[in-house]
Amino acid sequence: MDTPDVLTWRDGHIEALDQTALPHQVRVLRIATVDQLVEAITRLAIRGAPLLGAAGALGVALAVRQAGREGWDGQRLDAEIKRIADARPTAVNLRREVSAVAARIPQGRQAVEDAALAVMDFAATASRQISLRGAAYLRDTCGRGRLRVHTHCNTGSLACLGWGTALGVIRALHEAGALGHVIVDETRPLLQGARLTCWELGQLGIEHRLACDGAGPFLISQGLADAVVVGADRVAANGDVANKIGTYGLALAAHRAGIPFLVAVPESTIDEATPSGSAIPLERRPDEEITVPAAPAGTHALNFAFDVTPAELVSAVVTEKRLIPNGQWLTRPVS
Amino acid sequence: MDTPDVLTWRDGHIEALDQTALPHQVRVLRIATVDQLVEAITRLAIRGAPLLGAAGALGVALAVRQAGREGWDGQRLDAEIKRIADARPTAVNLRREVSAVAARIPQGRQAVEDAALAVMDFAATASRQISLRGAAYLRDTCGRGRLRVHTHCNTGSLACLGWGTALGVIRALHEAGALGHVIVDETRPLLQGARLTCWELGQLGIEHRLACDGAGPFLISQGLADAVVVGADRVAANGDVANKIGTYGLALAAHRAGIPFLVAVPESTIDEATPSGSAIPLERRPDEEITVPAAPAGTHALNFAFDVTPAELVSAVVTEKRLIPNGQWLTRPVS
Repeated sequence: MDTPDVLTWRDGHIEALDQTALPHQVRVLRIATVDQLVEAITRLAIRGAPLLGAAGALGVALAVRQAGREGWDGQRLDAEIKRIADARPTAVNLRREVSAVAARIPQGRQAVEDAALAVMDFAATASRQISLRGAAYLRDTCGRGRLRVHTHCNTGSLACLGWGTALGVIRALHEAGALGHVIVDETRPLLQGARLTCWELGQLGIEHRLACDGAGPFLISQGLADAVVVGADRVAANGDVANKIGTYGLALAAHRAGIPFLVAVPESTIDEATPSGSAIPLERRPDEEITVPAAPAGTHALNFAFDVTPAELVSAVVTEKRLIPNGQWLTRPVS
Repeated sequence: MDTPDVLTWRDGHIEALDQTALPHQVRVLRIATVDQLVEAITRLAIRGAPLLGAAGALGVALAVRQAGREGWDGQRLDAEIKRIADARPTAVNLRREVSAVAARIPQGRQAVEDAALAVMDFAATASRQISLRGAAYLRDTCGRGRLRVHTHCNTGSLACLGWGTALGVIRALHEAGALGHVIVDETRPLLQGARLTCWELGQLGIEHRLACDGAGPFLISQGLADAVVVGADRVAANGDVANKIGTYGLALAAHRAGIPFLVAVPESTIDEATPSGSAIPLERRPDEEITVPAAPAGTHALNFAFDVTPAELVSAVVTEKRLIPNGQWLTRPVS
């Protein structure tokens, strides 16, 4: 792409593409403080579960630099790092990568920065492995024709480093000559599908059609997709999947239509400490994301940013290490 | 309400509230020609299956007046009336009421206008009967507490004359002190839920929350609704239901959650001539309704305005004459 990196570490600062400005503006944020990072994460300038993990890792490095400049004590540094980990609650990747990198603080600034950059590198490599394994699963399951794939939200280069998760699977199918078209949900209220996924697919030259979120289940019922592929923000130990609001209806429709419902995630999205979907904290965002500008002034909303799909509706979860078919959640993760 | 009538016949013209301008503007259209009426219907200034039936009835009266003024022959009059009937394809009410009133043309202008006004009167009366019967069904089925109801699109006074269909059922529950809250889908792409249903519920003092369309199935799975109530644009002879895109996913979710999925319609929405849902013509509307302004320029869409819910997912259809429970579609309509 002719666009800046989605997320980089440069001269002790974070640079991030502002995802709220796409597709109409390409704007790079230069983030030098924890405040700026938390603000960017909260307003979804930086978003996507794997990318949040990487941003959290870099955030620890950023906090350590800021601590040095501003003379924070250890308690203040811990508190600032906790603010990063808590900036959004559902994607487990953020919290997990923050903790992993923060554990290196006793070894000094360089060790922290090396660890954060290693998280970035690993994310890009993992994303390609997820993509290839997911594509192979779909070709094995659906046959060798050109597959028509339905997806939701944005799970590509913008949400991850490298190819992405669900959109990486789609890209791998495309590169193998095994992709028909892609149907993209617009993904209200923030329209990550319309704004970001259509933009990425356009850059890749992949044929796609945009649909309203409410249309997804019906289009699936009419045979317009051979498979549904989505990412996730957290997968519980029993295989329940939290993902962008709107995912559950697609899973119901795929189940009824008898087509695969594949969840593509890095291992870091699987949270063994969360026993089931009901224990996943689901972020509620401001009413105004839904009510403005169409609804009458004063209208209240129910703005859950995520939903939970029960494991029994998930055909398989694919990661950089393994494929977990429906019903096999009693196995432990590979080490 | 302190607002003008939704649809009236005044001095040989149609006056209609422009539903594209609500809730922020109250604007009345004065419609004197077939061209103006077809344009108002096509751009959804006049919308809602029962209201389209009434508008079609008045449209025939309007065409007869225009024929007199402009000296049309019978062939021209027929062609103009057909344009009204064909202005939107899915709601059978439009075509049906146009035919019924057009059959009176040989009896002269007054007979036509009387017939059109009778359609208006009947619609208002039927709507109240539908509302009361639907509310009674839900109270019988769900118990006597305050029911929490999920609905889609707009099916109230703006879509019908009188109380409405699904929103009429909600209003009847409210008047009986049997309503908890209402969850309203925003109903992309044209946001009839956010713009119109929230406005009507606000006017009625009924507590409600607005949700994204993709959220509906999940909210139902979480026990936030005791029942789903929707209207329809056509019910096929086998009980399959065409309604605003987004309905099918709610039906799947209601079925899985074990709560009633009630369809409230006038008898004129039931089309014995359409054997099943697959024979219902589903309007496809312009890509731009979905792609502008968020998606990259040139993005294509799949913009079906309606979907089809199979009869087996419908708990009951309620009309002004009867309640048709799931599985009883072999019965003939009452005469």
